[in-house]
Amino acid sequence: MKNTFGSSVSITIFGESHGAAIGAVLDGLAAGIPVDEEFIASQMDLRKAVGKISTARHEADKVKILSGVFNGRTTGTPITFMIENQDQHSRDYGELAYKARPGHADFTAQMKYHGFQDFRGGGHFSGRITAGIVAAGAVAISALKNKGIHIGTHILTCGGISDRSFSDLTSDIEKLSTAEFAVLDDSVRQTMTARIEAAAAEGDSVGGRLETAVIGFPAGVGEPWFDTLESVLSHMLFSIPAVKGVEFGDGFELADMVGSKANDAYRKNSDSVETVTNHNGGILGGISSGMPIIIRTAIKPTPSIYKGQQTVDMRDMSNTELVIKGRHDPAIIHRARVVVDSAAALVLCDQLALRYGTDWFMQ
Amino acid sequence: MKNTFGSSVSITIFGESHGAAIGAVLDGLAAGIPVDEEFIASQMDLRKAVGKISTARHEADKVKILSGVFNGRTTGTPITFMIENQDQHSRDYGELAYKARPGHADFTAQMKYHGFQDFRGGGHFSGRITAGIVAAGAVAISALKNKGIHIGTHILTCGGISDRSFSDLTSDIEKLSTAEFAVLDDSVRQTMTARIEAAAAEGDSVGGRLETAVIGFPAGVGEPWFDTLESVLSHMLFSIPAVKGVEFGDGFELADMVGSKANDAYRKNSDSVETVTNHNGGILGGISSGMPIIIRTAIKPTPSIYKGQQTVDMRDMSNTELVIKGRHDPAIIHRARVVVDSAAALVLCDQLALRYGTDWFMQ
Amino acid sequence: MKNTFGSSVSITIFGESHGAAIGAVLDGLAAGIPVDEEFIASQMDLRKAVGKISTARHEADKVKILSGVFNGRTTGTPITFMIENQDQHSRDYGELAYKARPGHADFTAQMKYHGFQDFRGGGHFSGRITAGIVAAGAVAISALKNKGIHIGTHILTCGGISDRSFSDLTSDIEKLSTAEFAVLDDSVRQTMTARIEAAAAEGDSVGGRLETAVIGFPAGVGEPWFDTLESVLSHMLFSIPAVKGVEFGDGFELADMVGSKANDAYRKNSDSVETVTNHNGGILGGISSGMPIIIRTAIKPTPSIYKGQQTVDMRDMSNTELVIKGRHDPAIIHRARVVVDSAAALVLCDQLALRYGTDWFMQ
Amino acid sequence: MKNTFGSSVSITIFGESHGAAIGAVLDGLAAGIPVDEEFIASQMDLRKAVGKISTARHEADKVKILSGVFNGRTTGTPITFMIENQDQHSRDYGELAYKARPGHADFTAQMKYHGFQDFRGGGHFSGRITAGIVAAGAVAISALKNKGIHIGTHILTCGGISDRSFSDLTSDIEKLSTAEFAVLDDSVRQTMTARIEAAAAEGDSVGGRLETAVIGFPAGVGEPWFDTLESVLSHMLFSIPAVKGVEFGDGFELADMVGSKANDAYRKNSDSVETVTNHNGGILGGISSGMPIIIRTAIKPTPSIYKGQQTVDMRDMSNTELVIKGRHDPAIIHRARVVVDSAAALVLCDQLALRYGTDWFMQ
Repeated sequence: MKNTFGSSVSITIFGESHGAAIGAVLDGLAAGIPVDEEFIASQMDLRKAVGKISTARHEADKVKILSGVFNGRTTGTPITFMIENQDQHSRDYGELAYKARPGHADFTAQMKYHGFQDFRGGGHFSGRITAGIVAAGAVAISALKNKGIHIGTHILTCGGISDRSFSDLTSDIEKLSTAEFAVLDDSVRQTMTARIEAAAAEGDSVGGRLETAVIGFPAGVGEPWFDTLESVLSHMLFSIPAVKGVEFGDGFELADMVGSKANDAYRKNSDSVETVTNHNGGILGGISSGMPIIIRTAIKPTPSIYKGQQTVDMRDMSNTELVIKGRHDPAIIHRARVVVDSAAALVLCDQLALRYGTDWFMQ
Repeated sequence: MKNTFGSSVSITIFGESHGAAIGAVLDGLAAGIPVDEEFIASQMDLRKAVGKISTARHEADKVKILSGVFNGRTTGTPITFMIENQDQHSRDYGELAYKARPGHADFTAQMKYHGFQDFRGGGHFSGRITAGIVAAGAVAISALKNKGIHIGTHILTCGGISDRSFSDLTSDIEKLSTAEFAVLDDSVRQTMTARIEAAAAEGDSVGGRLETAVIGFPAGVGEPWFDTLESVLSHMLFSIPAVKGVEFGDGFELADMVGSKANDAYRKNSDSVETVTNHNGGILGGISSGMPIIIRTAIKPTPSIYKGQQTVDMRDMSNTELVIKGRHDPAIIHRARVVVDSAAALVLCDQLALRYGTDWFMQ
Repeated sequence: MKNTFGSSVSITIFGESHGAAIGAVLDGLAAGIPVDEEFIASQMDLRKAVGKISTARHEADKVKILSGVFNGRTTGTPITFMIENQDQHSRDYGELAYKARPGHADFTAQMKYHGFQDFRGGGHFSGRITAGIVAAGAVAISALKNKGIHIGTHILTCGGISDRSFSDLTSDIEKLSTAEFAVLDDSVRQTMTARIEAAAAEGDSVGGRLETAVIGFPAGVGEPWFDTLESVLSHMLFSIPAVKGVEFGDGFELADMVGSKANDAYRKNSDSVETVTNHNGGILGGISSGMPIIIRTAIKPTPSIYKGQQTVDMRDMSNTELVIKGRHDPAIIHRARVVVDSAAALVLCDQLALRYGTDWFMQ
Repeated sequence: MKNTFGSSVSITIFGESHGAAIGAVLDGLAAGIPVDEEFIASQMDLRKAVGKISTARHEADKVKILSGVFNGRTTGTPITFMIENQDQHSRDYGELAYKARPGHADFTAQMKYHGFQDFRGGGHFSGRITAGIVAAGAVAISALKNKGIHIGTHILTCGGISDRSFSDLTSDIEKLSTAEFAVLDDSVRQTMTARIEAAAAEGDSVGGRLETAVIGFPAGVGEPWFDTLESVLSHMLFSIPAVKGVEFGDGFELADMVGSKANDAYRKNSDSVETVTNHNGGILGGISSGMPIIIRTAIKPTPSIYKGQQTVDMRDMSNTELVIKGRHDPAIIHRARVVVDSAAALVLCDQLALRYGTDWFMQ
């Protein structure tokens, strides 16, 4: 399957950056879940450009729900979210039609689609396509919340500057849920945005790391093979443009620990079992332990930079140079975090529906 | 789907550590591919325990092919690999039947299977189940080789000690294909194994990082969403026990780069287009670029250690202590690398068959 | 997966009879295939109501393509078809909101969706949802035609009246491609429509059998298990509302034959092998033989009739009576045939792409 | 997916008629379900040859369970059933190696696998492969029984002779569960077997119709699109060799009814809603209504006959004649019925697990 993911709860996405519309079809979610269009809109806003550090392109990103919602609630049948593209510059794309932008998918798209791809603004490869994921994800996030499961993502690092780690997850996730620029330490916001602006001023761009926490997720969900929780989450997360690494718990740091350090000891709490530490990020043997799920994703710097770059002319595959003009993000990490929340929420809904049945979310 | 992965070429695995047999069903691979049982056996050997640094348990790991091979070639129908468990200690498992081993899946298995799981030796969660992946993967690796695609994995780090990076990929992969302990720098072998033995002497264990390279893989394979090459590879890799992180190209390091550094410039070669650098690890927009695919996986330290650990008695979820006895690996990274090769090869075969059709491998 | 079907080429459908819009996402079809919007419109017309024998509801059924087509050709990425619902009566649905219409899905929808389903006009269960299949199917039919594969369906029987059998498949399929009322024997059209009008006059409805032929389909496509050509075709066809039976070749009549009659003898032709008879309908062991694929589907009579019917009030599940008013089809078989063509074409495209690779259709 | 079917509960099959072993992997069934090896053996016996009307080949068909059962109960992880082939004649296959048997898959296998298929005894296309379905299906049937769901299939017609219809489903299904030759009317057994023997005496073969009933299946299971209950059941059933037609409820007869006859009126019973008639076979809009599910399958006559047949020599595709010798069934319908029960049970388990969650069967 290509643009569809999920088994019991699934999402199908469609659209191109400069086509008529983009969107998503969310299928399999239980009937009877309230759909809060204001919450969807606020999530869309979190994904949108803010201030100087983002692209000058402004889309209203008004989400139209075409199906699957009746009297304000999910019907149990496919929910279709459509976002019409309004701010399309119907200009000549010039050399961007045939010069492959380094770091972008232009060249690989050419190898796959043989020149028939919609190249405008990255077409179907554009980060803009994530808007559909965010719209559908907003409903998934709401469904999880109804069951006491909360998710939040912060910018752990950006351009070499670090946010503080998660501490009290409940309040941290609460704080992140409305944060325009998702850092936990307020003082970091300014240094990070300054770093992004500095990169922009140089015609360059920066990347960073996102850290996601999920709390309230029940133990016993996931599979030993091949649909481990890590497998299905990473599958989804690696399809978000610019994600080049995914780790769970202490991830790559675990590789340097000894077992006596990495193992999370168990202890009985008042009413449940928890681990003293959480190096494994809430997942053991592919299955949730009931501890917070911790995910980190590596976001590479935005490939659109304003410096001259060596590339090929795809008409004859000859060597050439490219200088990108136009409007572009010097960083996308502050926008990507709501995409990660949304994508992860969709996967978790699917896993929960597989485990507990399709009606679980309506109970 | 649970123990089955893949779309056109798929693998289904089965078995428990101390059950009658383990194995795998490899389905969808083209007819007519020579099956070299000696090569399968040699791959099984690479996965097996070697010397002091591995478990004292010795399985012959003789692979029986039950179906799908006729006159030494694949028939195009399911190939079944069965490995009978011979070295089972039919002893009393004692407290391991109910005390959750930290870092293992005992507790999460209990939450999922409610006590009906086969707990002996980790049951279906055991690393032993990867033997089926290696057997099937051997045929996949052969199929790729026939098409000029080669794969190799080395131990980039183990217990804090580093191997050299890949340099000449062709000769490095060749060297790794028969290496018992997969390091590129021969002088590192001794320091790494000494480090593993030191951990063993302390009743502790170590983990590490694996680095995998694939050469000869054609451009234009993979999907923009949701089956990016990174997505499908990571999905498979994260189901290998102990894998807690997966990254492509420079992975998490990309997060700290600026765009002008991270972007890989294109240049025309004699007959193809390549990139000057390969920070993106051969994949852009989810699709192969024709450059080497570079993957790194984080392997956590073996959870079985000989030190006392705090845990719960799962019969009543009360606090207790556990001291693990018996035979265990102080490290599994030197065994895991052939599992990673095999798992990745299976995924790549699937992607190629989807792209070029089911007969491509027989041509 | 629910509203998505297909593996390499897939379709996702959405919408409700009286919602904002219905539609489909067609994914995985090769890039570069010309998209003929006029042909799509003409296929939509074939599905629409004609004359006295169909519902008085008239939808323009204008198909908007939201994505996946660029410069008149497929891009290789998802093609989204949207059909806005225009002729919605925003009236009080009265007792249809809670009285289960016999033969319809009202009661089973209630059991599944617990009252949250959009009941208006059958909601997501409405035959109207097949419009998305027809739109996507039109592109699939075109892609098949480009490769010399043609498909056609006629009304074999309706209300007990029979059309002649297929004879010259090439000219029969050609004739059907533009027939408003799909019978091969022109003289049957009038008797059949008279039969439908007679049923309508009695407040009743009729069903019938559709017969489909596919010519030019290559040998060697399909699987022995579980994705036999019959399996995947029937899977799709049984999801079309009102289909209650599917058979291939001589189907149920084969059950009464002896083997020496049912077996199709082979003979060499100038350049290919064919069978003397085609009792098996072009499929043996789940795989195409190169002979015409023959499918018959049973369409039950339209459940909406104007006679009083015994039913339950779903608010308290008490016994009650129902008399349906409003606009309804006394028969849908003449509209269903283009749905069957479209559905079958989508499945065949998927099978061909799996067999020969994703680019096969662009060659 | 090819030899794997199912989403939450799935089966993977493998093997060839004359290979080392055949079998199945049943995955996803809840933990804790008792596995009764005697019941499995008795189901295997029902599939086996009986008396003069079946093949002279006798396999012990001893099922070995390689994994997934611990202390007599399912573990929740894959259950592997292996049946070693013992009665293989290691003779020269002679012309059967290259002459396509009409009605069999020899020619289509050649078109798909290019001569690399294991042709011996039909290889992977052999009806023998259904033994794995019966073994896995036995566990599925047991799991359904535990939840009050019962399934039974009788030979509705064979060689033109008819059994009586289902009347009291509970006692009819009970009777069928142990019947060696599955007819409801005992007096029919002799006429049917005589008819089969007569066909055998002529070197010919007969087919027939199977009718299956499922009782106790809850309302509200299945999907409107594309995974209607009819869709998923027919998908599985059409992969059983020799099945050429599938219908639900009154099936093709519904095509000739008027709506006022075909609609099943609802009425309130003491504690549930039922329909007065069951023309729709317990499924409306793809979803179960709580009424008995009624399925009929058309089984074509066994293609192996002893009369001379016209065919092609696949080495050069020249015309030739073939006279089949050896041991073959003059009918397989009496053996196929337990395959249909098993196949249907597997599909229903999958649907129930998707609907109610993976643990539903253990409750």
